[in-house]
Amino acid sequence: CFSNKSTKSSSIDISGVYPPIPTPFTSNGQIDYVKLQENFHTWNASDFAGYVVMGSNGEAVSLKEDEKLDLVRNVKKMSKPTSTIIAGLGLPTTEQTIEICNRVAEEKTANAALIVSPSFYKGQMNELVLRKFYEDVADNSKLPIIVYSVPANTNLDLSSSLVTALAQHPNIIGLKDSGGDIAKISEIVYNVPKDFQVLAGSAGFMLPALLMGCVGGICALANVLGDQVCLLYRLFKDNDLKKAVALQQSLISPNYMVTRRFGVPGLKAAMDLKQGLYGGVCRAPLLSLNDVDEKVLVQTFAKCGYPLVR
Amino acid sequence: CFSNKSTKSSSIDISGVYPPIPTPFTSNGQIDYVKLQENFHTWNASDFAGYVVMGSNGEAVSLKEDEKLDLVRNVKKMSKPTSTIIAGLGLPTTEQTIEICNRVAEEKTANAALIVSPSFYKGQMNELVLRKFYEDVADNSKLPIIVYSVPANTNLDLSSSLVTALAQHPNIIGLKDSGGDIAKISEIVYNVPKDFQVLAGSAGFMLPALLMGCVGGICALANVLGDQVCLLYRLFKDNDLKKAVALQQSLISPNYMVTRRFGVPGLKAAMDLKQGLYGGVCRAPLLSLNDVDEKVLVQTFAKCGYPLVR
Amino acid sequence: CFSNKSTKSSSIDISGVYPPIPTPFTSNGQIDYVKLQENFHTWNASDFAGYVVMGSNGEAVSLKEDEKLDLVRNVKKMSKPTSTIIAGLGLPTTEQTIEICNRVAEEKTANAALIVSPSFYKGQMNELVLRKFYEDVADNSKLPIIVYSVPANTNLDLSSSLVTALAQHPNIIGLKDSGGDIAKISEIVYNVPKDFQVLAGSAGFMLPALLMGCVGGICALANVLGDQVCLLYRLFKDNDLKKAVALQQSLISPNYMVTRRFGVPGLKAAMDLKQGLYGGVCRAPLLSLNDVDEKVLVQTFAKCGYPLVR
Amino acid sequence: CFSNKSTKSSSIDISGVYPPIPTPFTSNGQIDYVKLQENFHTWNASDFAGYVVMGSNGEAVSLKEDEKLDLVRNVKKMSKPTSTIIAGLGLPTTEQTIEICNRVAEEKTANAALIVSPSFYKGQMNELVLRKFYEDVADNSKLPIIVYSVPANTNLDLSSSLVTALAQHPNIIGLKDSGGDIAKISEIVYNVPKDFQVLAGSAGFMLPALLMGCVGGICALANVLGDQVCLLYRLFKDNDLKKAVALQQSLISPNYMVTRRFGVPGLKAAMDLKQGLYGGVCRAPLLSLNDVDEKVLVQTFAKCGYPLVR
Repeated sequence: CFSNKSTKSSSIDISGVYPPIPTPFTSNGQIDYVKLQENFHTWNASDFAGYVVMGSNGEAVSLKEDEKLDLVRNVKKMSKPTSTIIAGLGLPTTEQTIEICNRVAEEKTANAALIVSPSFYKGQMNELVLRKFYEDVADNSKLPIIVYSVPANTNLDLSSSLVTALAQHPNIIGLKDSGGDIAKISEIVYNVPKDFQVLAGSAGFMLPALLMGCVGGICALANVLGDQVCLLYRLFKDNDLKKAVALQQSLISPNYMVTRRFGVPGLKAAMDLKQGLYGGVCRAPLLSLNDVDEKVLVQTFAKCGYPLVR
Repeated sequence: CFSNKSTKSSSIDISGVYPPIPTPFTSNGQIDYVKLQENFHTWNASDFAGYVVMGSNGEAVSLKEDEKLDLVRNVKKMSKPTSTIIAGLGLPTTEQTIEICNRVAEEKTANAALIVSPSFYKGQMNELVLRKFYEDVADNSKLPIIVYSVPANTNLDLSSSLVTALAQHPNIIGLKDSGGDIAKISEIVYNVPKDFQVLAGSAGFMLPALLMGCVGGICALANVLGDQVCLLYRLFKDNDLKKAVALQQSLISPNYMVTRRFGVPGLKAAMDLKQGLYGGVCRAPLLSLNDVDEKVLVQTFAKCGYPLVR
Repeated sequence: CFSNKSTKSSSIDISGVYPPIPTPFTSNGQIDYVKLQENFHTWNASDFAGYVVMGSNGEAVSLKEDEKLDLVRNVKKMSKPTSTIIAGLGLPTTEQTIEICNRVAEEKTANAALIVSPSFYKGQMNELVLRKFYEDVADNSKLPIIVYSVPANTNLDLSSSLVTALAQHPNIIGLKDSGGDIAKISEIVYNVPKDFQVLAGSAGFMLPALLMGCVGGICALANVLGDQVCLLYRLFKDNDLKKAVALQQSLISPNYMVTRRFGVPGLKAAMDLKQGLYGGVCRAPLLSLNDVDEKVLVQTFAKCGYPLVR
Repeated sequence: CFSNKSTKSSSIDISGVYPPIPTPFTSNGQIDYVKLQENFHTWNASDFAGYVVMGSNGEAVSLKEDEKLDLVRNVKKMSKPTSTIIAGLGLPTTEQTIEICNRVAEEKTANAALIVSPSFYKGQMNELVLRKFYEDVADNSKLPIIVYSVPANTNLDLSSSLVTALAQHPNIIGLKDSGGDIAKISEIVYNVPKDFQVLAGSAGFMLPALLMGCVGGICALANVLGDQVCLLYRLFKDNDLKKAVALQQSLISPNYMVTRRFGVPGLKAAMDLKQGLYGGVCRAPLLSLNDVDEKVLVQTFAKCGYPLVR
């Protein structure tokens, strides 16, 4: 429906599969870099395009600014040199967001910033306000910006028209859509410039999203079943759709367990049940999974062909 | 995740594209069978698998019982002999629903009944109540049953586990899902017996739904752009996905105009702007589109390559 | 904020307490007039201003037109000569609604019509459409009209500005508000003509609603605890607020059991546990309360001082 | 319904009216203490019981920790010696919340902490998690705790049963309820120990809340119309209900303008239009009111008898 001419100021390619990594904590509540290194040892063996650090699954809202800067530094070191690092850097105000983007940009520890929509004053977060927020951040950030729509957490579903407008900005290079409305995602892909890159925000709908023009996915499930999510991407690229469909279908229920149903505690519980991965506790008030819930999680993975056993 | 053995009592095939036809009215509020015949003249030239009569777009809630029986009789006559007729026959009580299903079954005017979930007492419509409703209807109806989930109208989104349970019933042959949660639709397809047939409830997500295992679509937009929706289905069946994706993308905004945005009045307005089709007025309280809204509708169709001009 | 001049075409006074009576059914699903007569024997001993028949609690959506006309005829006979009869007569179309209002008006079996907002096409039920619906009904109905906002069933909360506009109509005499937003109710009372009468739609907030200018209540709980709800109204009228507050507080949890929590089945279950009252079954798909839920209901009433025992 | 024995570890009385003060900013985005002093000069002439600093209207989510500590220090100084200072100190984690409570406690700059429910991971914020959060904070905080339910911002409406459970804790002394469900508020008052103090979270329903047992209100509107909100409280205490009802009704629409409709920008715009008060800009992304919206705000105040003119 719209013309397709635009040039991004940065030509970073964000296609492929990214795990939004959880942040491990020690028993006294500090970031546990030893465990994180172990996780990276496992993750780096998969075909990830890179990593998302301090997304919703990274408990970003529970980290202080210094912890964030330190965490992204370590992720940069622990990942492969070829990995694209996307850092979750959205904060409640425009100014704070710009400031942390530029600090990370200076340290050259991330390739792009994933910016969640501010949401506390949701009654006032109309299209005009959100548009100005993202454009002001993009105008002033030395990191390229990826817009992040995650209505399950923010109760704000960024509209197709808002994203289409933002996609014209030279420093806004893409969107992570965790809402999962496939018609809306397809409409966005249809309307934005060709070099605006849309990523599925969950493994639950990655294949249909790829079909409709998304370039990859940021998938909590990839932390646990990294090879399977990468295989799904590969099967799609190789046009082996029959296998891709079967694989996609088998991943939906497990994905649901580590996202909507049990959230970050579910994701960490699943990691604790996989060789080579450490989940551990969340920062309170998030509680670890209880035994009943963990059983539901284990049974769901097993039923779909993904037994969780150390 | 589940075993796939089941046999339906009826072997009716409901794959393909169906327009959920609107009901035309004369200026004094009666069903206008002359205009309906004209519409069928146009529709019968498209490759539809059949027709849905008295769906949400047919203003079923505004029709009296005698009008319904008469309407489906006429649709049976006006459609092609090979057309599959699906009649919307859900009523607020179990008994009324069974009764009308069996009256239509006796008249042999429809092949299957599309049963919307009862929704007025939504606080009490838990999974147990809805399961018993559908199973009681299916036990007693001589027509095979298609479950109909349309949360935009009912505020009830039938869960994956409910549909999976219902799919085991020999007289429940399929689902029309108008909610459009592609992960949920995929999960249902994965969990139900192979002969349980899932239909996309809208043209806005038909291609991803087909990819994930749906067998067709009941699409309001097919009333207006019948050939394009049938082509989308055909391109998918022929595995011509590149063209299919481009076509699917171009249909989303027009589809939105005749569904969520402007509803039945929008659909009828679009029909009034197509040669060979008649939309006309809705039964009050639904109002015809005003000029401003009609302009939005026309511009949206035009921008996407589908000019509406008589 | 607005001027307060208006004259209603009818001077009917609807102040006071009304039970929205449930419809009893025989084991074969017919309206059970023997049981209804027994209930009226009990109810007529309370100080009700009258009765609401075929409200949400009367399972109006499950009754056919002939049943409705017959039911209101019987209610007229069974109630006291001084009782005001309010009949729930809203139907999905404007024309059907007008027609049934005028049939009841001719039979002189009810004093006013309670008209629920049409809600199936909720996406199109904007303020303009709803305003025209109510005004067209009011223009053509020989019964005075009471607007009925019940968002728990319709997912439409009629706005303060809509009600204020409708209140200017000479044949729209009042509002039943079951949403319970006390600020909105107060704003409506402030803005409407003095002879527009607002009724609380539930016993859960009747006292604060009376304080803010409502003239009475239509309260499901009054079917079971009629004397207590009438006493609450009386204490308010007598300005005995301390006792009124204590009584109001004690009624909230029992009220919740027979409304939001367990709906009509909860109301009927509570009636079955009171001497002189019959609840019985609902029309399917509504199911009777199971034993666990009935226990919760009984305990809640008991805890608040209202033991349910035959 | 429950027994009423309990003793709070602190006997602080939080009854009365509190403005949740907005935080003024200079043109370069710093807290503007000169303007704040001017506002206190005006506010201190009203009969407030005290002040809430860093509530939702104080843009707490946009303030850094050092700014918060500094702000509450200044508020302590600028307010009257008899003023009760309630500081909004909820943070995303249990530990951060405890830490800041104890820092403020050490500085003796506030009398109680108002703790908003954590809400980013709303899918996991079930009753168990929220209960443990509040109890852990209360166990470890040297300031007494007031629970804060503000569903318009958090999309979490703390349940009656959760609040009733929390009310048993010796260091949880009260609740600010901004949801405004008067039945729920009344049920809470009925169920909690007598020394647990419930405050209305808005001027829109303060009178009905006082009637049902609340001890006061934290009202955004009190920043602008402080004398009127204090008068409303006084009329209730003096049992002059007729005047109280009229006053309450007149405050609802103005209150709506500075809360739901226009949020903090609306509140600051109204302050800018009152002699002796300064509103100014919000921290971005919140935008100042545009001219059209400001006109709506001014007209609404005027229509209800509260002209806004410098």
